Amino acid sequence: MTRPIERRALLKGAGIATATAAATLGAPVLAAPALAQTAPRVRWRLTTSYSKALPTLFGASELLAKYVKEATDGAFQIDVFAPGEIVPGLQAFDAVQNGTVELAQTALYYYIGKDPSFAPFTTMPFGLNARMQTAWMYHGGGLELQDKFLAKYGVVGFVGGNTGAQMGGWFRKEIKSLDDIRGLKMRLPGLAGQVMAKLGLVPQNIASGDIYPALEKGTIDAAEFVGPYDDEKLGFVRVAPYYYYPGWWEGGPTIHFIANDKAWQKLPASYQAVFKAASAYANADMLAKYDAGNPAALRRLVAQGAQLRAFPIEVMDAAYKINTELMAEISAKNEAFKEIYGSMLAFRNEGYLWWQVGEYPYDGYMIRARQRG
Amino acid sequence: MTRPIERRALLKGAGIATATAAATLGAPVLAAPALAQTAPRVRWRLTTSYSKALPTLFGASELLAKYVKEATDGAFQIDVFAPGEIVPGLQAFDAVQNGTVELAQTALYYYIGKDPSFAPFTTMPFGLNARMQTAWMYHGGGLELQDKFLAKYGVVGFVGGNTGAQMGGWFRKEIKSLDDIRGLKMRLPGLAGQVMAKLGLVPQNIASGDIYPALEKGTIDAAEFVGPYDDEKLGFVRVAPYYYYPGWWEGGPTIHFIANDKAWQKLPASYQAVFKAASAYANADMLAKYDAGNPAALRRLVAQGAQLRAFPIEVMDAAYKINTELMAEISAKNEAFKEIYGSMLAFRNEGYLWWQVGEYPYDGYMIRARQRG
Repeated sequence: MTRPIERRALLKGAGIATATAAATLGAPVLAAPALAQTAPRVRWRLTTSYSKALPTLFGASELLAKYVKEATDGAFQIDVFAPGEIVPGLQAFDAVQNGTVELAQTALYYYIGKDPSFAPFTTMPFGLNARMQTAWMYHGGGLELQDKFLAKYGVVGFVGGNTGAQMGGWFRKEIKSLDDIRGLKMRLPGLAGQVMAKLGLVPQNIASGDIYPALEKGTIDAAEFVGPYDDEKLGFVRVAPYYYYPGWWEGGPTIHFIANDKAWQKLPASYQAVFKAASAYANADMLAKYDAGNPAALRRLVAQGAQLRAFPIEVMDAAYKINTELMAEISAKNEAFKEIYGSMLAFRNEGYLWWQVGEYPYDGYMIRARQRG
Repeated sequence: MTRPIERRALLKGAGIATATAAATLGAPVLAAPALAQTAPRVRWRLTTSYSKALPTLFGASELLAKYVKEATDGAFQIDVFAPGEIVPGLQAFDAVQNGTVELAQTALYYYIGKDPSFAPFTTMPFGLNARMQTAWMYHGGGLELQDKFLAKYGVVGFVGGNTGAQMGGWFRKEIKSLDDIRGLKMRLPGLAGQVMAKLGLVPQNIASGDIYPALEKGTIDAAEFVGPYDDEKLGFVRVAPYYYYPGWWEGGPTIHFIANDKAWQKLPASYQAVFKAASAYANADMLAKYDAGNPAALRRLVAQGAQLRAFPIEVMDAAYKINTELMAEISAKNEAFKEIYGSMLAFRNEGYLWWQVGEYPYDGYMIRARQRG
């Protein structure tokens, strides 16, 4: 077994094992004396787009900070700031870009106002599920495209969380057909809002804290947020009980950590490695938290009166068709989007070829076995 | 932006920023001078159960070693040894337990001969899918149960990889009913072999390198291994073209890193943190590699003549029933198994309650949309 040299022994200049000792199995395997390393003290500020009230999302920043600190013996510290403490939640990207902070936790699709090419790195309507999103980023060319795209902004991005497939949101009235969509005021930001607008829905962008009162007053008729674990905390079930699935606009969105590129380049290589591994851990851990927390939250919501409903197939099909047209329109006008979305789309089509053989039949059997009891 | 102090400047005793400088946005945020840390040199040996010819499985050990080395500036090194270089692949656990090596990459269910309680930490027949397996370990009580169980052996375990849902294997002849199972000689180790034996199948345990010749000669009639990406490399399609799904005995198996507990306890806390984050990265990265590599491999296999078939429902149902009985038998005799399997089972039943709402309808719609073109 390896026996790290104690600090005390080192200070005495003693306790250095030799290469010979390592030849015995189970003996210390020490190639050289301990190093007196210079570990530069680095302190970064992280601004997050997510409230402390959402332990899955906010918790990923805490996990990153914890592991970075522990792994560097406290030399590299990340201080986590809630939305509004430094900048508002949706100004996280700009704050990193202009150097107000070194680091942010955010979702890149919040910034489609700058360029729609941000969106595929988070998720797309009828896009990748959570596993495919991570696989595309790590081993399907996604990260390389992201590095190239974000370099224009002086920002470097890291996969740092995933919510899994989201729900389609809370509705005050049941949706039975396309007719029921028309004129509906719904909190539905981003590209999905643009798709649904073509079906007559009136999309709204409302901050999470303002959704409940708007639903309660009837200022809006429906709202989507995340899934059972988060939605329960916001209390929507009391004012809009019809809970729809699937959330076809967010099959498995990535939450990002983004760093100012100049700050990143100044980090020692060892801190960069620590950061990369810790952000990968945060990515997996967030999804695991959702997967562990969603089932019981769903049970509680149903007990509180949530009415689970699948979107009518004509609504899904109409949205799918319009989305395909909208993406073609954007691709025709935007070369970067065309390349990034095209890569994601090719990965999706291949991914679901395998999914229908490998994963889907397994899950399907298990779901039916469970229903049978 | 943070500006790490350069080594040169430190040696001169200069370059220390003050707290005042940090007050300006974008200026160095340095709380204290750089530390002269003692970073003990540690060198561990890792023996893996997996051949270098399997880049997904073996590659996770390489990724772990790479990040641990980079994150510690080379102070903590892990040397990776292929099966047979130190001990044979299936003696990895014993080698860690008795201190021959500090670390191994293996699957815990290889060791059900010692105790069937090892199995749920890897996977179970009709068990968890890949995401649920990681969620159970991280946030469903799995890791705590594993720590308690492995402590008896002086071993500590880390989630370090996942293959996703596996295939049901390669058959020389088509399986149309339960009758076609009886008398079949199949490479099918572990608990699934015990289940299928009760249906008349004759299970065999054959090392991966010996499967192809056994199938070719007709010594065996069928064999399961992993999925398209790995199976393609072993060439089974040429001798047993019927390729069955789903692999109901491996819905999402965890690959582990296991460390000798005494060696682990001697690591500095910073190296333990580095190791934990790097193994979590390896876990996610392996699954991403499979998800990125399986689709194209499946295409090639079908082009080479693979005949994709779903197991007949009567085979699935009979196996499910026998498995339930077998697990009850083992639980009645083994308290540890009862506790561990019971925890996994409760997590599965809750997990699929949510899965049927959140993930399955999304994947189902995407699969049908793809088929429609």
